[in-house]
Amino acid sequence: MKYNFGAGPGKLAKEVLAEAAEAVQNFNNTGLSILEISHRSEDFIEVLNETEQLARQLLAVPDTHDIIFLQGGASSHFAMVPMNLLPDDGTAIYLDTGMWSSKAIAEAKKFGKVSVIASSVNADYSFYPKGFTVPKDAAYYHFTSNNTIYGTGTFETPQVDIPLVCDMSSDIFSRDIDVSAYSLIYAGAQKNIGPAGMTLVIVKKGILGRTGRDIPTIFDYGVHVAHRSLYNTPAVYAIYVTMLNLRWLAAKGGVSVIEQENIRKAALLYQEIDDNPLFSGTARKEDRSRMNVTFVMNAKDLEYEFSTFASQRGIVGIAGHRHVGGFRTSLYNAVDLKAVEFLVETMREFTRIKQY
Amino acid sequence: MKYNFGAGPGKLAKEVLAEAAEAVQNFNNTGLSILEISHRSEDFIEVLNETEQLARQLLAVPDTHDIIFLQGGASSHFAMVPMNLLPDDGTAIYLDTGMWSSKAIAEAKKFGKVSVIASSVNADYSFYPKGFTVPKDAAYYHFTSNNTIYGTGTFETPQVDIPLVCDMSSDIFSRDIDVSAYSLIYAGAQKNIGPAGMTLVIVKKGILGRTGRDIPTIFDYGVHVAHRSLYNTPAVYAIYVTMLNLRWLAAKGGVSVIEQENIRKAALLYQEIDDNPLFSGTARKEDRSRMNVTFVMNAKDLEYEFSTFASQRGIVGIAGHRHVGGFRTSLYNAVDLKAVEFLVETMREFTRIKQY
Repeated sequence: MKYNFGAGPGKLAKEVLAEAAEAVQNFNNTGLSILEISHRSEDFIEVLNETEQLARQLLAVPDTHDIIFLQGGASSHFAMVPMNLLPDDGTAIYLDTGMWSSKAIAEAKKFGKVSVIASSVNADYSFYPKGFTVPKDAAYYHFTSNNTIYGTGTFETPQVDIPLVCDMSSDIFSRDIDVSAYSLIYAGAQKNIGPAGMTLVIVKKGILGRTGRDIPTIFDYGVHVAHRSLYNTPAVYAIYVTMLNLRWLAAKGGVSVIEQENIRKAALLYQEIDDNPLFSGTARKEDRSRMNVTFVMNAKDLEYEFSTFASQRGIVGIAGHRHVGGFRTSLYNAVDLKAVEFLVETMREFTRIKQY
Repeated sequence: MKYNFGAGPGKLAKEVLAEAAEAVQNFNNTGLSILEISHRSEDFIEVLNETEQLARQLLAVPDTHDIIFLQGGASSHFAMVPMNLLPDDGTAIYLDTGMWSSKAIAEAKKFGKVSVIASSVNADYSFYPKGFTVPKDAAYYHFTSNNTIYGTGTFETPQVDIPLVCDMSSDIFSRDIDVSAYSLIYAGAQKNIGPAGMTLVIVKKGILGRTGRDIPTIFDYGVHVAHRSLYNTPAVYAIYVTMLNLRWLAAKGGVSVIEQENIRKAALLYQEIDDNPLFSGTARKEDRSRMNVTFVMNAKDLEYEFSTFASQRGIVGIAGHRHVGGFRTSLYNAVDLKAVEFLVETMREFTRIKQY
């Protein structure tokens, strides 16, 4: 038995994986593999339609917004967002809350002016800056709603008067959001959506095509919207597994139900971190992520030993990001409460053995 | 029993699919799915290394060239090639042999000057233009070695004095090539490489970083080379299945063995098309593709009936591309000689029934 707390590609539910495996040999009883069917076949068009409908329903995406499924990962959108939305002489406002925000900022600077309205870099990105006002005369405001590396998250919809853009790679489908407030949301699939190799993009109608820039066709959101994710061959299997995963989420009761479960999971683990003399959380309490719980050991020399102890009990994927060290346990939707209880027991057991 | 002649995503071997399915539930006996492991885990690094080594060995890629595996499909390289290789004031030479070449040309024009040295557009792209000399003072020469839509292919390495760039999406791994002659080769995975969602790129050392252009990080080939395909989360599963598929090819004896088989398969089908009074090939004989055999029926009104007849016998994926009609049967590596024999028998049987 393995308990997978990996930060991404993250855990997927057993039922989802069983169906995902079956389709590799025989998809929909066609006698063909999902890996060898045309992306323009009726069978796959149905998959694409259902995936879109499930995403629309689960996130309550209004008709004012289109949903597309692209290859490339969130990192391509660090460039595609300014390419599509920031005129050469325009300014985009960015909030800097971690490595991914910083990378997004660096790419935007290649297309126009960037104003970083606030940053927590000097506090090791341990919190979300607050209390600033986003100017009204910029092209858009970009933020990252959850920082996998630093274990911080924000659950508020920013109140701004300009187009709102968000990288929701690590918390989309984990909590209810008001999609109508956003002009563009992008999210790499490999956490709560599906396997690596695909990005979900939700884009408000009417915001594209205003920069005057001659965008390469494949990097133009408008092209993918017009072709309903079939401008070129999409990541067929990643979309199929996403459909299975969203079906699983819908059967569990949807996003508001999983959100309550995610709150309970995170609360349980943070409680242990706060109570246990061996561990300390790294993010400020009011900005703690529900998806990625980062912590260190108060006695640094025990970190290797605890890693080994946890690993022997079947716990995998809890090493901190290679740039920050310590521990990171990711509590994505498919990680159930029992797994978190087992992790907490393991932390307690280790503490007992060490006689703290 | 299904006989899959789809143009892409194309057929994969049964053995490959069986292993590909197994890993979705239990990868390498880790108790985890290949879909939920970290792309930086030792297990996956081994997969990536083996995939690269297999590609290097099977295509005899010299040490002068790097191999990378990217998301995005060949269509992204229509833009990335000029972005990385064509200075603003430079000229690139393109050969126009079909829809994909045309799209590549359109994207290159967004980055610099383009000179189309020859085109077969006025003959419905039914042949490869020949007898031209590529100028020595251009940034690079780009061509498409096989045209899936029009059923044409070229088997010569162009003799040029400037960097040679080739879109080999539909014939890579189907025949021996002299990689040392090329500066850049790109190929979407979904024909002879693996499943959709990945592109193989082979790039000669020393050709990058010369345009003076500030390229978005994610679209910079040099970044992916430096990070050995791990700059961002790659298409983990597509790379894994590619490894299985290249192992399968290596076990069959490699590219020169499969090339002989591909020659036999294509010869058998073209012979039938030429001999059978009901059918006609659409490509000029000297430029016929071995991968995609395109043909029409001499009595157009029989096309629907033949489609249905073939379909009832388990033959799938033989409709011509939606832009040209007729028929297209794709004979990728995983389509064996028996499948082609069955298709030929089916054509003969239909002809008998129709009393031609």
